[in-house]
Amino acid sequence: VNIKPQTLKGFRDIEPEEALKRGRVLSLLKSVFKSYGFQPLETPTLEYASVLEGKYGPEADKLIYKFQDRGGRKAALRYDLTVPLARYIAQNKGKITFPFKRYQIGDVFRAEKPQAGRYREFTQVDVDTVGIDTALADAEIIGVLATCLQLLGIEKFEVRLNDRAVFQDLPVRAIRILDKLDKIGRDGVEKELVKAGFGREILKKVEGQKQTPRLKEIFLALEYFGLDKNSFRFDPLLARGLDYYTGMIYEIFIPGESGSISGGGRYDKLIGVPAVGGSFGLDRLTAAVPEKTFENIPFQPQVLVTIFAPDLIQSSLTVFSLLQAQGIETEIYLDPAAKLDKQLKYADRKGISYAVILGPQEIKEGEVILRDLRNRTQQSIDMKMLSRALATT
Amino acid sequence: VNIKPQTLKGFRDIEPEEALKRGRVLSLLKSVFKSYGFQPLETPTLEYASVLEGKYGPEADKLIYKFQDRGGRKAALRYDLTVPLARYIAQNKGKITFPFKRYQIGDVFRAEKPQAGRYREFTQVDVDTVGIDTALADAEIIGVLATCLQLLGIEKFEVRLNDRAVFQDLPVRAIRILDKLDKIGRDGVEKELVKAGFGREILKKVEGQKQTPRLKEIFLALEYFGLDKNSFRFDPLLARGLDYYTGMIYEIFIPGESGSISGGGRYDKLIGVPAVGGSFGLDRLTAAVPEKTFENIPFQPQVLVTIFAPDLIQSSLTVFSLLQAQGIETEIYLDPAAKLDKQLKYADRKGISYAVILGPQEIKEGEVILRDLRNRTQQSIDMKMLSRALATT
Repeated sequence: VNIKPQTLKGFRDIEPEEALKRGRVLSLLKSVFKSYGFQPLETPTLEYASVLEGKYGPEADKLIYKFQDRGGRKAALRYDLTVPLARYIAQNKGKITFPFKRYQIGDVFRAEKPQAGRYREFTQVDVDTVGIDTALADAEIIGVLATCLQLLGIEKFEVRLNDRAVFQDLPVRAIRILDKLDKIGRDGVEKELVKAGFGREILKKVEGQKQTPRLKEIFLALEYFGLDKNSFRFDPLLARGLDYYTGMIYEIFIPGESGSISGGGRYDKLIGVPAVGGSFGLDRLTAAVPEKTFENIPFQPQVLVTIFAPDLIQSSLTVFSLLQAQGIETEIYLDPAAKLDKQLKYADRKGISYAVILGPQEIKEGEVILRDLRNRTQQSIDMKMLSRALATT
Repeated sequence: VNIKPQTLKGFRDIEPEEALKRGRVLSLLKSVFKSYGFQPLETPTLEYASVLEGKYGPEADKLIYKFQDRGGRKAALRYDLTVPLARYIAQNKGKITFPFKRYQIGDVFRAEKPQAGRYREFTQVDVDTVGIDTALADAEIIGVLATCLQLLGIEKFEVRLNDRAVFQDLPVRAIRILDKLDKIGRDGVEKELVKAGFGREILKKVEGQKQTPRLKEIFLALEYFGLDKNSFRFDPLLARGLDYYTGMIYEIFIPGESGSISGGGRYDKLIGVPAVGGSFGLDRLTAAVPEKTFENIPFQPQVLVTIFAPDLIQSSLTVFSLLQAQGIETEIYLDPAAKLDKQLKYADRKGISYAVILGPQEIKEGEVILRDLRNRTQQSIDMKMLSRALATT
């Protein structure tokens, strides 16, 4: 049977160059998380549907992928990494030392209408501190995310903070309308509020709110963490629609880009233990990283070791193994019967910088030809000097 | 509503220490793959069910997780990383430069009866070379996997190789029985073969087979790649049950451990382009890595910066930020109101080696107390010397 090769709607392949960039971003993030004392945790991709349902609000609930497994259990693909963390904490409360600081990198699934640059499976990167309710814990989450951005070369960003306490007199329904501010604008929000039966003055009242004492403490701690004062501000209209936030909420914006690059907040009721956290979406984050951060990633191996003739394969493999063992990213041409010309063309097409050629004459003299494919020059060098020559290019 | 916090049967959480070990294994594997010129590719977790069905044989097909998505599409959780690669190649044939050498690390799902140490979601690590059919390409796959094992500190292993050509006169049904050799032994296989209507002599005939010319070429290339001759051998009874193999097949064993740590082979018909590959299961691989490989992973931050009193928070945060920026894994105690004693107990419980204490006297003199929590000694040192002192411990 011939099946049409295609991915499901809203799903995609991540090809080598993009995958290498994402890998670089993730390894920088992990090093920052660890330097702050956060540790990795991995929860499964599938959870009991009942663990996820009713946690994200009615709109989001509809987007959860659910199905029945063979044993008749209702399973669901995880929708985010926060609710599985809550499940993990509840399940292991007795043996965890609090505060428990963890990071998790994992794919989440949302059956949303696919849009440009938005997928139904995407990678989230979360950091959370569980088991403590202090301004310092709140500020540290912002601090670790800001350090990540700086290390990735994203120098300009703005953290907008608010406190759910600012909305304490508002029903959840009104908060969800407020959360649409970015999408439908101030006028749109006002219209929807009136339509939903709230007074027109509600928006003005929220705008006029003052910083809570807790927010003041957080702002001070952010300064102590070394954050530039211009990189964060109070935003009384920031709402974040998710049902589970109870204290500080925030989003991080990059000037000139629409939508936030990170967001999170405190959610003390989801777990039964106080908790605060934040997350990055890897797609949006990687897209925001300046090219210079990726400059030193080799997208192709540096060297192709060619095979001059089938009976000379041993010398080529020996040289290849030598380079490879020294950590020089190297390919061996895999078809000994191919003409040298074809081998060099392959290196060219892949953008490999150097070719190593070992003809009978070179092998006899313990030499190799090192060909620079970019400027089409070549030199004979002693076999023993090859890795040093390549390491210094 | 109170939901019982639990994972689905056959699923699990991977806790920090184990997650750190796995992370170390994966970063070593990635560096080896790259050094051989393999590049990362990421395919989605969900595929069209029709892409996966009929590729693994009837028994395996039953273990694929399938469900209908909202748009009525039949979706499936990936069962391995090979068939999605085949789908990717078929979908992108026109734009790929062959040979295409890729690695992929990803979770796969199999609805098997859970057993000790076996899960329904587990991480596979695959390397494949697509678009070329040579002994050198076959040998390189073995070479890269062997290099991984060596780098992980697994020094003793045996690669058993066979060629599907050895079975060319056998029906698939008989090959599947042969594949049970590890589980049910030679006698068991013989019984099942007879029961299935094959002659008793079939097993003897297979055992007497000679190396194919291709296998001889592969063995020679393995030597040239620098592999110890004692680390690989011909095994005419090695079958590997999957339907898609067409040429070389192999498994890697560690002496004294049952079951293979890696396996793979050539599958030229699955894609329509020749291909060869292999994979590790991350659980089994990580379990086989000797403890000394993990010796230098810090499972806990090295330092806890304490807070002497709420009004002295600024100095502690400054010192914390300084250490953190220098890559020293550090925690700041997150509750400024906690007594110093409680803070030190927390560090002890978490196994953190050092505590930094900044009292009013120290702050005035530009010093800190560095307390070694393992041998209960402490010293006052200049604040500027702190990171150097910690870096050399």
